[in-house]
Amino acid sequence: MRNLTLLTDLYQLTMGQGYFSEGIHERLAVFDVFFRPNRLITYSVAAGMEQVAEYLGSLRFSKEDIAYLRGLGIFTEDYLAYLSRLRFTGDVSAVREGEIVFPYEPILTVKAPVLQAQLVETAILTLVNHQTLIASKAAKICHAAGGKVMEFGLRRAQGADAGVYGARAAIIGGCVSTSNVYAGKLFSAPVSGTMAHSWVMNFPSEKEAFRAYARSFPDDCLLLVDTYDTLKSGLPHAIEVFRELRAAGHEPKGVRLDSGDLAYLSKEARRMLDEAGFPNAAVCASGDLDETSIRSLKEQGARIDSWGVGTKLITSADMPALGGVYKLAAVYENGREIPKIKLSDTSEKITNPGEKEVYRLYDNGTGKAIADYIVRAGETVDETKPLELFHPVETWKRMTVRDFRARKLREPLVSGGKIVRESLPLSAHAAYFKEEFARFWEEYIRLDVPHIYKVDLSAELYALKRRLVEESKGERVG
Amino acid sequence: MRNLTLLTDLYQLTMGQGYFSEGIHERLAVFDVFFRPNRLITYSVAAGMEQVAEYLGSLRFSKEDIAYLRGLGIFTEDYLAYLSRLRFTGDVSAVREGEIVFPYEPILTVKAPVLQAQLVETAILTLVNHQTLIASKAAKICHAAGGKVMEFGLRRAQGADAGVYGARAAIIGGCVSTSNVYAGKLFSAPVSGTMAHSWVMNFPSEKEAFRAYARSFPDDCLLLVDTYDTLKSGLPHAIEVFRELRAAGHEPKGVRLDSGDLAYLSKEARRMLDEAGFPNAAVCASGDLDETSIRSLKEQGARIDSWGVGTKLITSADMPALGGVYKLAAVYENGREIPKIKLSDTSEKITNPGEKEVYRLYDNGTGKAIADYIVRAGETVDETKPLELFHPVETWKRMTVRDFRARKLREPLVSGGKIVRESLPLSAHAAYFKEEFARFWEEYIRLDVPHIYKVDLSAELYALKRRLVEESKGERVG
Repeated sequence: MRNLTLLTDLYQLTMGQGYFSEGIHERLAVFDVFFRPNRLITYSVAAGMEQVAEYLGSLRFSKEDIAYLRGLGIFTEDYLAYLSRLRFTGDVSAVREGEIVFPYEPILTVKAPVLQAQLVETAILTLVNHQTLIASKAAKICHAAGGKVMEFGLRRAQGADAGVYGARAAIIGGCVSTSNVYAGKLFSAPVSGTMAHSWVMNFPSEKEAFRAYARSFPDDCLLLVDTYDTLKSGLPHAIEVFRELRAAGHEPKGVRLDSGDLAYLSKEARRMLDEAGFPNAAVCASGDLDETSIRSLKEQGARIDSWGVGTKLITSADMPALGGVYKLAAVYENGREIPKIKLSDTSEKITNPGEKEVYRLYDNGTGKAIADYIVRAGETVDETKPLELFHPVETWKRMTVRDFRARKLREPLVSGGKIVRESLPLSAHAAYFKEEFARFWEEYIRLDVPHIYKVDLSAELYALKRRLVEESKGERVG
Repeated sequence: MRNLTLLTDLYQLTMGQGYFSEGIHERLAVFDVFFRPNRLITYSVAAGMEQVAEYLGSLRFSKEDIAYLRGLGIFTEDYLAYLSRLRFTGDVSAVREGEIVFPYEPILTVKAPVLQAQLVETAILTLVNHQTLIASKAAKICHAAGGKVMEFGLRRAQGADAGVYGARAAIIGGCVSTSNVYAGKLFSAPVSGTMAHSWVMNFPSEKEAFRAYARSFPDDCLLLVDTYDTLKSGLPHAIEVFRELRAAGHEPKGVRLDSGDLAYLSKEARRMLDEAGFPNAAVCASGDLDETSIRSLKEQGARIDSWGVGTKLITSADMPALGGVYKLAAVYENGREIPKIKLSDTSEKITNPGEKEVYRLYDNGTGKAIADYIVRAGETVDETKPLELFHPVETWKRMTVRDFRARKLREPLVSGGKIVRESLPLSAHAAYFKEEFARFWEEYIRLDVPHIYKVDLSAELYALKRRLVEESKGERVG
């Protein structure tokens, strides 16, 4: 990753100047990243934490950066000198890559001198919002497919990073491979792909095109059969070439359908391949797919073995931004925490104040997740006693949890400016997501009208929140 | 820009291997980039051509790239050796940055040895699709606003590049500035931004927060007034601080509203500022804006001087991918062009074959654009004679054009692998778009149900297309 120190909003730097001029720039501040609910978010799959760590670990303004900032004519020389020496010295705790997360719970918390904490807000949000968005979309699509999904969207991605880090996130969310070679190299991600229509058009006939491909890739021969006419031309030609291939001692991989009625064509393709003696040749489908169209195809009995998903995955087309926010939770004065709250006329938009910890509670009998539980930092969760949970807004909704295990959802990512979390291979993140996904009841993660998974506050945190709301009601006009 | 040579789909490299093994990898091929129509695309604003040129000019596989490809175990050593020496040697013609373009017309054409031409498809589409998407969205938003629009979307962008190149595209499409400091440095783009809610929350009171900001930025004092209560707290405090500022010899810039009913609040803010003697203090609004909400606010008489637009611009939220395609138009055999066509059951999806040129015709009386006109390469357009245009599908729709000027829409971008177009400042691209925009009748560019601007084919190109359709109907099953 290139150096992203300047990847910030100008206002972070103007506020930085202000804090610096006021002499309060090194006061500790605590900011939480969390998502707000949305009709399309039932759960999210967190991703991008490693990129956040890399970014923070390499935060430094180059000489040219400082020269550029000087040229804007709005910053003082002493502030620029300070920036030129600035490194990130704070602490960051965050969920794991591939963690399943829910609205309101802080998935990443920055505790750092306020100038630094503001400066890094924008890039942290950009990195986490993007990858979490795509990992979550991939999870939905893979859940609907229930089988092999390949990420094919690079050409429709919103720029190179969207393609590369989008591919990374897609694999965390469950895709088996990507077409993106850059991502393949950078993350050791499995890559896949064979031919385009232009290959077929570059030969005098479809059959010659297929034969030429089989010559180059006798053991990886997957043919695109819809360039002219899938049933009358593509499939008969593919079968002919598959027979030649088998005669030469190779087994074909299969065919890809990229247009037309995929339900009908896949059934016909399956039948023709089976009748021709190629029951192991796969039928791969692509073309404007997402969780909705995949589910519909499956309901229609489509015979599709693997799915190539492009535009709608790599852009999360039905919701192209996640809207994660970064909110001030506390400042420190003379070593004492002063919890902060952001009010709103909408109860759900009032932030949870102070430093916090998040636990996921699992039922010891089933091993399944019961609820997430947000507490004040320093509070402990006693697994040996029944725990009463209540809804953070509709507080009369209560539930008592017994015989449970509590797991801390966040762990240190950066400590005193140093990356303290080991970088794991992408396959480990994907495996982690898969394991955790299995710990959720289908009711919470189904695509339609899922049950809302509980994210509750401890009594102590709730009391703090109420107190601050009351106090600030008195203060705000003052 | 970092080296993007590996930013391609794997199938480009497997097809490359196939062409190489067949010994046809250096055969010249011609590919066109164009957009298909879409209910949300009336016109597009082309952008990203400079990044395409940079990418092509620096195309080369590094040693590690080759080692990575070798590790995939699917390529031959002679092919890998060939790739390691590969440079882009082809020709590219393209429209200007900021050019207004329409569906079907080739906005960029690559003529290169087929292996190269395939290899570069993906990155060209990624770069052009993304920036054109955002420039087009910006154009619509700025058109609706009719005034100053600032791009504020970085934190919701799909990764760093989406933020940085999205900001570039937004400025081409008419935004006056971006909050993105990285883009500011990279493209000398104007940057803007002052404070967030966290600034206000970091001080014991809103008034102290405003005062502190005014101390640091007495001549650039724009205050965010909605942290607690816009009318009861934010505006009265801002006005108080503005008075102190004026007493010290400085004029305030204005206020920003970021939540609530922007129509009502902006009218109240305007009234309060005017009554307090600050008629020149601007009212800036932000918060989930796009062309639709901006138009609605204007219809309600909102008194907003500038607009901060974020998520919906930087992701083009209602259509997050443009769907530009890259289609084979011709191959060369023994120096002779063999035009190629891609058929489809939908007439509109049949490609325009052969090497082509695109002209924009302007009326000499009004200076306004009349139609775009696609011809075969080598055809001339005689401005001294009446020209009959006809609809490329509904051919009975005809129109005769007289007293017109014809301008070639595309110019060389890369020739023999060398960049031949001078890189211009971003402001020049933005100015170019603005000029050309003024040459279009409002009927063609309005937001609601615009008149469809004509993109017609020459009689010669039309005859070629018909002939190839007829021929391939006979061939396809053969």
